[in-house]
Amino acid sequence: MISVSAEMEETIKRISGRKGVKGVLVMNHAGQTIRTSMDPELTKQYALQYSPLVKQTQTTVSTLDEENDLTFLRIRTKKHEVMIAPSKLWVSGGVEDKCMGRHGLTKSILHA
Amino acid sequence: MISVSAEMEETIKRISGRKGVKGVLVMNHAGQTIRTSMDPELTKQYALQYSPLVKQTQTTVSTLDEENDLTFLRIRTKKHEVMIAPSKLWVSGGVEDKCMGRHGLTKSILHA
Repeated sequence: MISVSAEMEETIKRISGRKGVKGVLVMNHAGQTIRTSMDPELTKQYALQYSPLVKQTQTTVSTLDEENDLTFLRIRTKKHEVMIAPSKLWVSGGVEDKCMGRHGLTKSILHA
Repeated sequence: MISVSAEMEETIKRISGRKGVKGVLVMNHAGQTIRTSMDPELTKQYALQYSPLVKQTQTTVSTLDEENDLTFLRIRTKKHEVMIAPSKLWVSGGVEDKCMGRHGLTKSILHA
């Protein structure tokens, strides 16, 4: 298992324990799972689907303006909300029920 | 020019007049521009880049859960924020400077 800082372990634990949070997933840019609070199958599916989507979004942003960069991606669906914070090293994401207060989770993910 | 309701015309006018809003673009699902407040070249670029991204996001969501649907997409970048509300007929999007109050724009786009 790839090591992560104690601070990130703590953040993942805190976020995944929040009411309404269905899962937290940290991947590297190759889509490999670094940490997850979801079951293996769901983790595999989310990584498989969201890793290329994050890449395409980053490409979309930089194609329109080379000096611009994706900092946060929020995908609201009928059933829940997925929040993704790409950074140089990781891509951290959280899945939350729609009715929960999102801002808290957004802040947490941004500082994962 | 494809006709849209007077209400949508009014909404586009109102949103694009808001402080900090850099542009509003309404496309159909084929990526053709229905209305835009941006110049033709920027409109073409945004439609070209964001139309496939919206499709891939919709596919990502429905692949993970056939009964789920994308309702809103928010892409925050270093320079601005793009908010996209896909509906059965249109894909409505707004580009806003990051420092502006986003909630107002989000509400407006959702009801475009």
